[in-house]
Amino acid sequence: MVNPLFLPELREMLATQNEVELKAFCETLHPARTADFMEGLSADEAWQVLQHGTDDERVEIFAYFPHEFQVEILETQPRDQIARLIAEISPDDRVDMLSGVEEEIVNELLVLLPAADRRDIMRLSSYPEGVAGAIMTTDLAKLGENLTVREAFEALSHSAGDLETIYYLYIVDDAGHLRGVVSTRQLVSSMRKQNTRLADIMDTEITTVHVLEDQEEVARQVARLDLLAIPVLDDERRIVGIITHDDVMDVVREEATEDAHRIAAVDPLERGYLQTNLWTMSWKRGIWLTILFVGALATASALQSYEGPLDRWTWLVLFLPLVISCGGNTGNQSATLIITALSTGDVKLRDWAQIMRRELAIGIVLGGFLSVIGYMVACTMAPSLMEAFVLPLTVLLVVISGAVLGSALPMVFHRIGWDPALMSNPFVAGLIDILGILIYMNVAMQLLPLVEKTLPIVEKAIP
Amino acid sequence: MVNPLFLPELREMLATQNEVELKAFCETLHPARTADFMEGLSADEAWQVLQHGTDDERVEIFAYFPHEFQVEILETQPRDQIARLIAEISPDDRVDMLSGVEEEIVNELLVLLPAADRRDIMRLSSYPEGVAGAIMTTDLAKLGENLTVREAFEALSHSAGDLETIYYLYIVDDAGHLRGVVSTRQLVSSMRKQNTRLADIMDTEITTVHVLEDQEEVARQVARLDLLAIPVLDDERRIVGIITHDDVMDVVREEATEDAHRIAAVDPLERGYLQTNLWTMSWKRGIWLTILFVGALATASALQSYEGPLDRWTWLVLFLPLVISCGGNTGNQSATLIITALSTGDVKLRDWAQIMRRELAIGIVLGGFLSVIGYMVACTMAPSLMEAFVLPLTVLLVVISGAVLGSALPMVFHRIGWDPALMSNPFVAGLIDILGILIYMNVAMQLLPLVEKTLPIVEKAIP
Repeated sequence: MVNPLFLPELREMLATQNEVELKAFCETLHPARTADFMEGLSADEAWQVLQHGTDDERVEIFAYFPHEFQVEILETQPRDQIARLIAEISPDDRVDMLSGVEEEIVNELLVLLPAADRRDIMRLSSYPEGVAGAIMTTDLAKLGENLTVREAFEALSHSAGDLETIYYLYIVDDAGHLRGVVSTRQLVSSMRKQNTRLADIMDTEITTVHVLEDQEEVARQVARLDLLAIPVLDDERRIVGIITHDDVMDVVREEATEDAHRIAAVDPLERGYLQTNLWTMSWKRGIWLTILFVGALATASALQSYEGPLDRWTWLVLFLPLVISCGGNTGNQSATLIITALSTGDVKLRDWAQIMRRELAIGIVLGGFLSVIGYMVACTMAPSLMEAFVLPLTVLLVVISGAVLGSALPMVFHRIGWDPALMSNPFVAGLIDILGILIYMNVAMQLLPLVEKTLPIVEKAIP
Repeated sequence: MVNPLFLPELREMLATQNEVELKAFCETLHPARTADFMEGLSADEAWQVLQHGTDDERVEIFAYFPHEFQVEILETQPRDQIARLIAEISPDDRVDMLSGVEEEIVNELLVLLPAADRRDIMRLSSYPEGVAGAIMTTDLAKLGENLTVREAFEALSHSAGDLETIYYLYIVDDAGHLRGVVSTRQLVSSMRKQNTRLADIMDTEITTVHVLEDQEEVARQVARLDLLAIPVLDDERRIVGIITHDDVMDVVREEATEDAHRIAAVDPLERGYLQTNLWTMSWKRGIWLTILFVGALATASALQSYEGPLDRWTWLVLFLPLVISCGGNTGNQSATLIITALSTGDVKLRDWAQIMRRELAIGIVLGGFLSVIGYMVACTMAPSLMEAFVLPLTVLLVVISGAVLGSALPMVFHRIGWDPALMSNPFVAGLIDILGILIYMNVAMQLLPLVEKTLPIVEKAIP
């Protein structure tokens, strides 16, 4: 979709100050595509191009630039022009953009803004990351309950262009308390009854969120009720903003990616992969890698305490990585299935007994199957067919343990209020590694002496 | 939020046929909450309760029941009542619901439906799962381009209640080709120019998708452009449906969960965890577990070829699981970071050189750090401080290989068109396991003979 061949033409237009074509470039395409076409321009060049669009076009195209490019433009271009741009950007988006800009420059820009915008930015940026207040916008349609349908249309037609969404009208009393909501759909349906008061058609059973509610919970509510926007209330139940469907979609994507990172034992990144610097990345991976490493050191101690049997039956060493990995893989599957099912609400904690029964059954089925393959290979490497039997027995027990532990631990962590996605992997991996060694060695120590008692007779008979 | 204490009261109302209270129950709360309160009722009881709501209330509450409960009701309740319900449900939702119902019953229901609904259901259900056609709805506002703003409002006010979304009006020619789109926002802004033709205010630069487009691509477009709905066109560019933001949100969640499952080597489930039967679950996990198991069998052969060094330096066995697991963990981190970054579009294939440089650097940093810890522990277990040096050297090389391989493989698979989420884990895990053993054994075979040449002199000097 991106056409790098277009860049030279764009630069040519700039060099020759081709007003007409630059204006056409800003207004013809969807702003997202115009922004794509500008990829590769310097901040100076891009800002020059944007000067040829209207105020609205400039804001819209700018909104589709990558975050880092936005920050670069905000930091380098003339302060007064940038302040005018910021005043036009929607309240939630500009706070996001400014979060990357150097504090000194932000302060210089703030003094150039109208007082109302300045206060709004300072209030929105005071919310901690990850709560409703940090993703809400303050651009919303607030109307009094005594307005009629006709007056509501009249009010809307004046402000429709500036509002983030016109699809819900929020009905408030004089103190700003939320009394009800009227959807544009209801308004349009009531068009023939122009003198009806909004209070008579509004919905008073409204789903709202508190300004400090976790954004993940907000996303769940919006998705469950298929809402276009959800109102955000303060402690006194006054409406302070709304969160729209597109911001919720971003939250859903962000949380899903964070969960995937946590399951792989990476502390979630705040910025994109390439935007995270080397030291932050090393730290976010290093802490968990170190915890997993220290956990794995315990396997060395465990093996040390079995030096006797390992010296006596050296062939057992051959299957050590296999035993550990099949436990780990099974545990990883179970843990991921339960973590994702818990986070989508697909299973609840009260289903635990059913989940344990299922995982036990699945462990038996899968372990049984892998045992058969394992036995066939073990026969070719172990000293005798009888001794080879250690492997399938171990695999069966290890796979069952993996399935049961892998599903139980996320539920335990969920129950005690820890994030299952974050905590489960290191614990599951560490426990299964150790358990795998314990099971393997104990099966061998129980079985092999029995086999040796019977086997010499058979073997001696052969030569 | 769910109150199981309410069930006895609900049953009491049913037993006494308390019309007034049952009616109030159906109409008072948000339908999602009403549905929550009914959790625990049998299909018969729930259907009886719903008879006390209006047609609209019945459809809305029914829409919030869990899928399995919906299917149970559709299959067990009187066919004529069910047919009336189905006729009222939105086109995309009813196809979803009917997909779980036994075919024989579906056929019985279809003949009871109005011909238009029947055709619509059969057409929508003919699209394969995962494409735009399968998630679109056919309820949309289509208007001619010669209509005026006033006429459009008029038309809308009649049909607003029945349409899935009234937020975009699609402007079509006589043959049904899409010519443009007018948002309700534009319409409201144009209210004072009531005689303007829609053709004069419509947007003709429209983002559309083909009816067979992959749903993941649809979700990407809608999320990127913050759309409320995207029109779906057939081969002749006629508009056949729209996909609304709430269905896109479901796709985003579904795809994120599927990716997480694939990364953990589980073939994605079509239904929820508890709704998937034991054999399907065993199969979806078993195939990948078997592939991983067979891959891990190669570690046994690899170790077999190093029986010489392992017999000579038996203490090396102690650290075998540790070496393998730290390579696997690093590889898993890198692979997951790259897979999620590729799927959100955060990194592109053309960034490969930069990614490789980063992972190499991170491998050196993390490997270097873990080496230090590893060396300290190895000193307590290896025969001498010099010999213990095998471990940190191995850990450094294994972690670097893990980071580089773990990030390279997903890009390779992406390049050749395989799903990186699905393919990377088995390959990364298998390769790193083998590579870990090769590196460990070769470092030992290079280093230990050198140490032994110098060491006896020192050791002999002590006693």
